[in-house]
Amino acid sequence: MTFPAMADALVGSPDWIAFILSAFVTAGVGGALVLASGGARPTSLSVRQTFLLTTLAWAALSAFAAIPFVLSSTDLGLVDALYEATSGLTTAGGTVIVGLDQLPPGPLLWRILLNWFGGIGLVAMTLLVFPFLRVGGMQLFRTESSDRSDKLFGRASDLAATIATVYVAITTLSAIGFHLAGLPWFDAVAHGMSAVSTGGFSTRDASLAAFPGIAHYWVATVSMIAGALPMTFYVRFGLHGRGAAHDAQVKAFLSFLAFSWAIMATWAFLETDMATEMPLHEALAHIVVNVTSVVTTTGLASDDYGAWGGFATVAFFALFFVGGCTGSTSGSIKIFRWQVLVLSLAAQMRRMVSPHRVTLVNYGGKVIPDEVAQSVVNFVVVYVITFVVLSLALAWIGLDFLSAASGVASALSGVGPGLGQVIGPAGNYATLPDSAKLLLCVAMLLGRLEILTVLVLLTPGFWK
Amino acid sequence: MTFPAMADALVGSPDWIAFILSAFVTAGVGGALVLASGGARPTSLSVRQTFLLTTLAWAALSAFAAIPFVLSSTDLGLVDALYEATSGLTTAGGTVIVGLDQLPPGPLLWRILLNWFGGIGLVAMTLLVFPFLRVGGMQLFRTESSDRSDKLFGRASDLAATIATVYVAITTLSAIGFHLAGLPWFDAVAHGMSAVSTGGFSTRDASLAAFPGIAHYWVATVSMIAGALPMTFYVRFGLHGRGAAHDAQVKAFLSFLAFSWAIMATWAFLETDMATEMPLHEALAHIVVNVTSVVTTTGLASDDYGAWGGFATVAFFALFFVGGCTGSTSGSIKIFRWQVLVLSLAAQMRRMVSPHRVTLVNYGGKVIPDEVAQSVVNFVVVYVITFVVLSLALAWIGLDFLSAASGVASALSGVGPGLGQVIGPAGNYATLPDSAKLLLCVAMLLGRLEILTVLVLLTPGFWK
Repeated sequence: MTFPAMADALVGSPDWIAFILSAFVTAGVGGALVLASGGARPTSLSVRQTFLLTTLAWAALSAFAAIPFVLSSTDLGLVDALYEATSGLTTAGGTVIVGLDQLPPGPLLWRILLNWFGGIGLVAMTLLVFPFLRVGGMQLFRTESSDRSDKLFGRASDLAATIATVYVAITTLSAIGFHLAGLPWFDAVAHGMSAVSTGGFSTRDASLAAFPGIAHYWVATVSMIAGALPMTFYVRFGLHGRGAAHDAQVKAFLSFLAFSWAIMATWAFLETDMATEMPLHEALAHIVVNVTSVVTTTGLASDDYGAWGGFATVAFFALFFVGGCTGSTSGSIKIFRWQVLVLSLAAQMRRMVSPHRVTLVNYGGKVIPDEVAQSVVNFVVVYVITFVVLSLALAWIGLDFLSAASGVASALSGVGPGLGQVIGPAGNYATLPDSAKLLLCVAMLLGRLEILTVLVLLTPGFWK
Repeated sequence: MTFPAMADALVGSPDWIAFILSAFVTAGVGGALVLASGGARPTSLSVRQTFLLTTLAWAALSAFAAIPFVLSSTDLGLVDALYEATSGLTTAGGTVIVGLDQLPPGPLLWRILLNWFGGIGLVAMTLLVFPFLRVGGMQLFRTESSDRSDKLFGRASDLAATIATVYVAITTLSAIGFHLAGLPWFDAVAHGMSAVSTGGFSTRDASLAAFPGIAHYWVATVSMIAGALPMTFYVRFGLHGRGAAHDAQVKAFLSFLAFSWAIMATWAFLETDMATEMPLHEALAHIVVNVTSVVTTTGLASDDYGAWGGFATVAFFALFFVGGCTGSTSGSIKIFRWQVLVLSLAAQMRRMVSPHRVTLVNYGGKVIPDEVAQSVVNFVVVYVITFVVLSLALAWIGLDFLSAASGVASALSGVGPGLGQVIGPAGNYATLPDSAKLLLCVAMLLGRLEILTVLVLLTPGFWK
């Protein structure tokens, strides 16, 4: 909170007081908690304590991160502030603020910082916490990362430091790229942080479309892809001089992305007027940056892509459920789970034809244990059930079919904008009823905590 | 085809010639095939032959069943006729015919007969073929039904005869019910056959709403539920004097149905004007009959329920994916698969909290083998992927988001009508492009053959 305070103080905006005040409140409550617990530090956490702590930590962070939005010139109500903070920290990127272009730098910087710290927080969770909790097949990466971290990094804190370095480096490169593409430094740094964290907050209402030219669309594309790759990928890349071939999910992610670009471009060129309305390379840039934004669950947009036509609406809706690599800042179901599902399916079809054949499911050169396959499946099932239940709730509140379903899908996956006129890339969440905003906060937190982490807290067995 | 010919001959409609001609063509091709194969009868079928035969048989039946729609006074084009026949035989129930009320009895009877024979054909497949092919966890019912059929029925042909008797009995009761509720005999019998087969074809464009009063809504509700229960349920009920308590899926199905009624009624009474526009019991009848129609995958309608509001649209869309009991005429994912999924999920959440605990998944008093749980999951995954791919294809052809998605969901599950103004309960499929109709035929056949039965034919391993 001191960074935005400094930024506002520099340009003479009175908002610096709001941030200093928020910092005092947060530090005060935090200090009181430390004192109340007698400064005791736990030597180790049980599985149950970790579940509880993870959920409570993200909820508490969102609550305190909301304070500046109430006190500063954004002047949001409590629910709106909570929505904006949750959207920032979970790197969803949906917004309730109209008029970003007129805001002083402090609140803009605060939003971007939430995205950026949220992003690295997620990487840390997916690498260190979820494999330990065996959430949704993440144990697949437990053996792997603990094997490797023994060799490469030694200890968890070393791993965290290495990853933080990588994260800062990628963000710096991205910011430089955005500046070279024509964005002023402040906007360039902000969009670099937003793209690499796959957060999606912008400094402008019009998002990427607010800046002239299309060069920055390509910078955004590369930055979002960089953020959606596992952070460990870069470290291994550096040490071994080897690339994507050794990481099954990276390969699948990049292939899927290229495939999505190709399909969307083929459709747009054959079935819409896009190719006649603008130069071919410009149309291609629009397609690539928006498809990439949704698949990486970022949410930056160059256009109201939901309005391109029926196919685009269905396709972007489906892309909400894909996601990037695990170990990245990206959300949604994630590419490795789809791989495990498809591989299991293929194995079963072989068994159906040849019932007595033994069929093992291989992933990245290893046999997937039944327990992992089952976890993956259960995750997808609970993801879909959560999606349906929350969509029903939003529709009950009064949202139309497309807004309810796409709003929940987008919040769960951390994309940000939904589809349609109300909450699509050209709209925002400001007009929604408070109850809908709160439900979307729940959806964003559930999505980021891989749902099961929160749901186990609701089982009677947990509290026994 | 001789039944509709007789009906038309009775009322003096020239359509009888069309049906006799169709019968000759069909019998001719059939006879030629018998002669060409030298009258040889296979003594047994391999797994691969069964896969191939099942798929080809349904495709061939649909093709020949289409002939009368081209030749008779329905006067459909080839694609439309194929759509109508496929929709009939798969008990989907979507239609391309506008002006049912003006048709002679022959074509009306033909449509209803397709529904009715399609329904009993499905029951036979789910009881005798799919468990053998181990499609989508159906092996769960293999041991069960083979155990029981040994004791109860002796042989498969006995089982088939018993089930046919039950089917005729339920249909007769339903027809009498519809007649008592005020429908003329022809319409009563037709709707009895349509409801018990969960087919959904009507003798009127307005479906159930064409007849005065609401008593027939309740007859339809009971008939559709009767059709969505496993046919073996009635036999066991008769022999042992025991009811639903012994069949986990029947219990779950009826509970889910009651739950859906309650939620929809609560919403409609709180959030819409339905309760002020009509007497309470009439509103309730509308809600119950339409919810039941969708959950049982029938497709008879008393109203354009998709237009009740956003919540209704989302809810009916979600209900497309539920389905009745296996061993019934009903389609979609089916209730036992949802049970297996939810039970597996609950077991995993217990494991997450207590990693060293052994957790077995029980269903109807038996432990579910891992292989069955995995099959169920793979079925749901392939169901959802098929849904997404076909929705994309329909959207590419030019359908809007809701029509594309609900059309495919409805065709796959065998409901019939989709949602929205074009293909909703108040519309029909006549205006869709031919390519869309053909894709929906594929969806209907895929849904009825439990998808995997067809997809294995496309794997290279199958042809080795």
